[in-house]
Amino acid sequence: MVGSVIGERFACLSFGESHGRCVGMVIDGCPAGLQLNEGDIQPLLDLRKPGQSIISTQRKEEDRVEILSGVFEGFTTGAPICMLIWNRDSDSRSYEEIISKPRPGHSDYPAKVKYSGYADYRGGGRFSGRLTASFIMAGAVAQKLLYSTLGIEITAYTVQIGQIKANEIDLENAKKNRYANDIRCPDLTAADKMREIILQTKREGDSLGGVVECICTGLPVGLGEPIFSSLESDISKAVFSIPAVKAIEFGSGFLGSEKKGSENNDLFTIKNNKIVTKTNNAGGILGGLSNGMPIKMRIGFKPASSISRTQSTIDLSSLSEVDINVAGRHDPCVVPRAPPVVESIVAAVIADHALRSGFIGPVLKIWSKKQNPKN
Amino acid sequence: MVGSVIGERFACLSFGESHGRCVGMVIDGCPAGLQLNEGDIQPLLDLRKPGQSIISTQRKEEDRVEILSGVFEGFTTGAPICMLIWNRDSDSRSYEEIISKPRPGHSDYPAKVKYSGYADYRGGGRFSGRLTASFIMAGAVAQKLLYSTLGIEITAYTVQIGQIKANEIDLENAKKNRYANDIRCPDLTAADKMREIILQTKREGDSLGGVVECICTGLPVGLGEPIFSSLESDISKAVFSIPAVKAIEFGSGFLGSEKKGSENNDLFTIKNNKIVTKTNNAGGILGGLSNGMPIKMRIGFKPASSISRTQSTIDLSSLSEVDINVAGRHDPCVVPRAPPVVESIVAAVIADHALRSGFIGPVLKIWSKKQNPKN
Amino acid sequence: MVGSVIGERFACLSFGESHGRCVGMVIDGCPAGLQLNEGDIQPLLDLRKPGQSIISTQRKEEDRVEILSGVFEGFTTGAPICMLIWNRDSDSRSYEEIISKPRPGHSDYPAKVKYSGYADYRGGGRFSGRLTASFIMAGAVAQKLLYSTLGIEITAYTVQIGQIKANEIDLENAKKNRYANDIRCPDLTAADKMREIILQTKREGDSLGGVVECICTGLPVGLGEPIFSSLESDISKAVFSIPAVKAIEFGSGFLGSEKKGSENNDLFTIKNNKIVTKTNNAGGILGGLSNGMPIKMRIGFKPASSISRTQSTIDLSSLSEVDINVAGRHDPCVVPRAPPVVESIVAAVIADHALRSGFIGPVLKIWSKKQNPKN
Amino acid sequence: MVGSVIGERFACLSFGESHGRCVGMVIDGCPAGLQLNEGDIQPLLDLRKPGQSIISTQRKEEDRVEILSGVFEGFTTGAPICMLIWNRDSDSRSYEEIISKPRPGHSDYPAKVKYSGYADYRGGGRFSGRLTASFIMAGAVAQKLLYSTLGIEITAYTVQIGQIKANEIDLENAKKNRYANDIRCPDLTAADKMREIILQTKREGDSLGGVVECICTGLPVGLGEPIFSSLESDISKAVFSIPAVKAIEFGSGFLGSEKKGSENNDLFTIKNNKIVTKTNNAGGILGGLSNGMPIKMRIGFKPASSISRTQSTIDLSSLSEVDINVAGRHDPCVVPRAPPVVESIVAAVIADHALRSGFIGPVLKIWSKKQNPKN
Repeated sequence: MVGSVIGERFACLSFGESHGRCVGMVIDGCPAGLQLNEGDIQPLLDLRKPGQSIISTQRKEEDRVEILSGVFEGFTTGAPICMLIWNRDSDSRSYEEIISKPRPGHSDYPAKVKYSGYADYRGGGRFSGRLTASFIMAGAVAQKLLYSTLGIEITAYTVQIGQIKANEIDLENAKKNRYANDIRCPDLTAADKMREIILQTKREGDSLGGVVECICTGLPVGLGEPIFSSLESDISKAVFSIPAVKAIEFGSGFLGSEKKGSENNDLFTIKNNKIVTKTNNAGGILGGLSNGMPIKMRIGFKPASSISRTQSTIDLSSLSEVDINVAGRHDPCVVPRAPPVVESIVAAVIADHALRSGFIGPVLKIWSKKQNPKN
Repeated sequence: MVGSVIGERFACLSFGESHGRCVGMVIDGCPAGLQLNEGDIQPLLDLRKPGQSIISTQRKEEDRVEILSGVFEGFTTGAPICMLIWNRDSDSRSYEEIISKPRPGHSDYPAKVKYSGYADYRGGGRFSGRLTASFIMAGAVAQKLLYSTLGIEITAYTVQIGQIKANEIDLENAKKNRYANDIRCPDLTAADKMREIILQTKREGDSLGGVVECICTGLPVGLGEPIFSSLESDISKAVFSIPAVKAIEFGSGFLGSEKKGSENNDLFTIKNNKIVTKTNNAGGILGGLSNGMPIKMRIGFKPASSISRTQSTIDLSSLSEVDINVAGRHDPCVVPRAPPVVESIVAAVIADHALRSGFIGPVLKIWSKKQNPKN
Repeated sequence: MVGSVIGERFACLSFGESHGRCVGMVIDGCPAGLQLNEGDIQPLLDLRKPGQSIISTQRKEEDRVEILSGVFEGFTTGAPICMLIWNRDSDSRSYEEIISKPRPGHSDYPAKVKYSGYADYRGGGRFSGRLTASFIMAGAVAQKLLYSTLGIEITAYTVQIGQIKANEIDLENAKKNRYANDIRCPDLTAADKMREIILQTKREGDSLGGVVECICTGLPVGLGEPIFSSLESDISKAVFSIPAVKAIEFGSGFLGSEKKGSENNDLFTIKNNKIVTKTNNAGGILGGLSNGMPIKMRIGFKPASSISRTQSTIDLSSLSEVDINVAGRHDPCVVPRAPPVVESIVAAVIADHALRSGFIGPVLKIWSKKQNPKN
Repeated sequence: MVGSVIGERFACLSFGESHGRCVGMVIDGCPAGLQLNEGDIQPLLDLRKPGQSIISTQRKEEDRVEILSGVFEGFTTGAPICMLIWNRDSDSRSYEEIISKPRPGHSDYPAKVKYSGYADYRGGGRFSGRLTASFIMAGAVAQKLLYSTLGIEITAYTVQIGQIKANEIDLENAKKNRYANDIRCPDLTAADKMREIILQTKREGDSLGGVVECICTGLPVGLGEPIFSSLESDISKAVFSIPAVKAIEFGSGFLGSEKKGSENNDLFTIKNNKIVTKTNNAGGILGGLSNGMPIKMRIGFKPASSISRTQSTIDLSSLSEVDINVAGRHDPCVVPRAPPVVESIVAAVIADHALRSGFIGPVLKIWSKKQNPKN
């Protein structure tokens, strides 16, 4: 496949452009028998939606999802599920300039070269953060599938904006509070400081990056495939599909590189008749396989590339240095909108592995006949 | 595919086990017309080989590569290239214990569960670092292919062992000195300290982690596929296949998450009639595509899981806590043997993308008729 | 992938159901720079459209294609091309019966078992011939791509309906006359007899099968990949995706099995300074690779399974034999609507191979700057 | 993947060349827990082995299989299974001529063009029938897997050589007698005539083709994936990988194209409390899915391309017509050696689908603890 598909058994194909007609996703391989309608997807899309708060872009999109196929009488059928949202409020006028003047930090220049000028450059086209709406569609289905079959839960939240770092987050707190504020940071004190710095940076015409943490609980032992399809391999591949992500670490990560084996090894023990480890420096993954402990990762986002300051770039026709003022509506910091995107794409990967390992079969048997009158 | 294959156009299938008969690699998709023999692979395997220095495992393996297919009269034919090394010096006696007592930090426990006890546990079996010898085989071919067609060079070296960090490394220095010492650290002063701390830690029966940096130069603009096959996606997927890797960052990485857009954006300019950026915080990748600047990444390794100290674990049959003393021969720190492995697996990914993007075709035309008497 | 995708470099994902909201196709991997709009696709869809003639189903569908993504300012961008038609005239009332009584010859029974009753059974759901409309969408793009870059032409036509066989068809005649009648048979005398027998069989409440021949010219030498991706392998895989196809043969096919090597071998010679063969019993394929001669295949369709006669089947709840009268609107013979479908799916395979072999690159350079004002 | 792999969950990668060092196969995805050793594979390889009878090539190869990986203590581990045979008796002297003079009916010409002369031409190289030994390796494992888990049996036999056709073969007879003679035809009277005609044709320096029939019993209902991965699609793709195959038909096939729906539809009924069809014109496949009836197919082989007569061809350097006498040792008819190859490749496809559909899981639970002392 050429690059728009991820997953083998829960295969997700993303299509659409930022300023084209729509943004959509087709899932091939979702098991039959999952109760599903637009109401399962819309709330997650709403969490990512632009224009929700003063800290995000003012582009107004209803982003109402439509399921076009693969669902019949309220249940998935096993056929591909095509979902999309229509683009309504795209304003492409401000993008004419970037045809010849690539914006620093954006894909404009390599995309122009790669496609000999044929790529849709408006709003970043195929490279826009708007495409992550399609990740949400896949992720909403994956999350419902994982939770209803295996009890797997995936929780992502902001832990850092610029240099403001949250205190360590407790999972219960994270689940409860991550969507309680527009920063998506369960440390409410830190969240206030983060909002403040975002607004101030916005006033300065500048932008910020940050870090998102993600925890997955409920995985059975043994998800992942040795060598080239380890959980870390496939999760990182998916996470780096999110624009602006430049770093990822699992468990103790880079900090673990400074430790000794005797400090970093997680010792096995028994708790409630279950094999667990006393610490979780491995982030729930040993040898690329889930070990039953929570998967834990931290994801680094660069500061948003679109800033309202004059920057220097080059003019592609004259090959001379020129100034550019990036127009268009954009976020001063994309991190607050990222947690549902992270949850989604991680869910899609785990759903894929759960199907590959046989923990979820091609037809769900969990729904009683009462729930599904067709059986 | 089930997990042992990476790449679509330069597809690499790894097979073998640490204490089985052999470790091997099949490449499907290497272009025809590349001059290739064992002499192109052996030197890189030798760099990874165990038993080379007092800081590595004392397992003695000749690791002599044999090409079994896909090469005819000194040139690749376009058919799958099967390569392998035979295991000679495996000593499996010390591994009986881990059948029932999983070693902390290792894959023993999830692998046992995943495969219901059928996995080959000896020396870690399929999860052993020894499998990275197969990565070298693929990488040696990929590196030769990339250099001879596009002039691409991939350079990895140690920049951190435990808490000892090298000074910033200049690429020319890295190319010259990375294999000048057994630490593979071009900062020779730091290398001495690193060796010292490794030896001391070994004496303490403990282990260390570290960080490897990797730089790729000569990439054309536009390698990578938008959305799910970005360069970061595919490189990180490959790099996390190396045992002990727990973190990766591109360009300014996690540090970039603390910066402002005006600090982190790389401004375009012209240098020697070529479009370049003034800084390289993006690590050579914008929107998932190569932008013509060097690809730059840092890779975090955890401390080796095998330590000579008594650790507590559980007995899988009695489900009670017990002590384990990990036997077998092992490295106190795997990082010094990692740079050629990193170079190899990154080369395989870039070769795959160069083929996908058409920068390299299915038959090489670069060899003159004089070189190849068959034409 | 789970089964709805064909192709690696020109990857086609079909979605939708016969009586769902739509039938659609996403192409991932179509090169950038191909001039494309709905007008390139609609005429081919119209050829397949139901309700065109007295010999086909009376379901009336406008089948107006919409391109939702991947095209910008009249040219493909390299991004996935999503296309669909909306279902308008579906009448699902007559299908309630088949929930418990599987129709002979149809997929009802195995589909019900496979999906535990969750499949959309209306009009055959995912198994309906209506899904071949999505093949046309992919094929229209593939045919334009192949013709405009390599001059490849694909021509399919009816050569047999029931026991009525056309005389041998000359390619020029086939190109000119295959769409001149509603049978799609260039032998106009045979076509009249075929129409007559179809109408008579329809009156009898019965149905007919037949044979479609397909010829592809202009292929370069060397398309196809040895062992598991031979041209015959990939074409046959695609052709058997068309409902009702039960047989395929290339070149002299089953008749060739009766011949001797001295009769069946095609001898090489030179014609107009080009290497050709004197005969074409190989159907243009040697060792799975195109040899420069026209690809030639014959495809056998079974008689349509929906007939208006009472047939016996079983009731799935009582497991007793019962009668069924298949309702719904259907074709007495699907063969006349099949040639554009065959052309389409064969074109998609050849486009895939042309991209895999590098005969077509990821960006088309054939369009002059005048044609594309963006360059 | 580039063409040497078939299957997604039971993925088979073939490597090697006719006159290279070896011919081999790697299976990625075989479930853990299958009892396996060389003794499961060798008998099937012996059935295909050259030099067994006066009707086959006199090349003498021991063809002794070695399992290099993926098996531990007599059971598969879930890791890739690499198997190979070494080439011993290759005699390449006679192939120098074909560098410039392509043999009629062989891949020499398109392979030479495709690979710009780099392909290994000796004995047909990668295109040789000898590569089907690797199919046997995969198929032996697949057949054991299918039979021991689901009771699936696959039976192929010769039904036609040249114009000599066997009487209809009863499955029980086929199972018993297909390997009772060197023709692999259970109709013993026909077999004698077939042998006679082969010997006579051999004396005339000519060759023959024929037809192999294959029947698979014991499949559960619902194997196959709609649209592009129907059972017919994937089986035909695999079968056309066998050199010399030019035609395939399922069930009533081309003959069915002449019938009416009322004649060709298979009516459902109940037999021994099981849903069956009264006839099996569908060849066990409806809508691309197994329907519980035996899968039935007929496969047409062209006459062997290597004949001992002088044929005309062209000289590639002078582009003039010349004569060629094909040397090398070859079969006058490959059909008698084909049945185990057909069984093998069909088994590999069905194993793949059984895994995809979840009928076989990634770890076999069927073996008792007594059989496997490790659990």
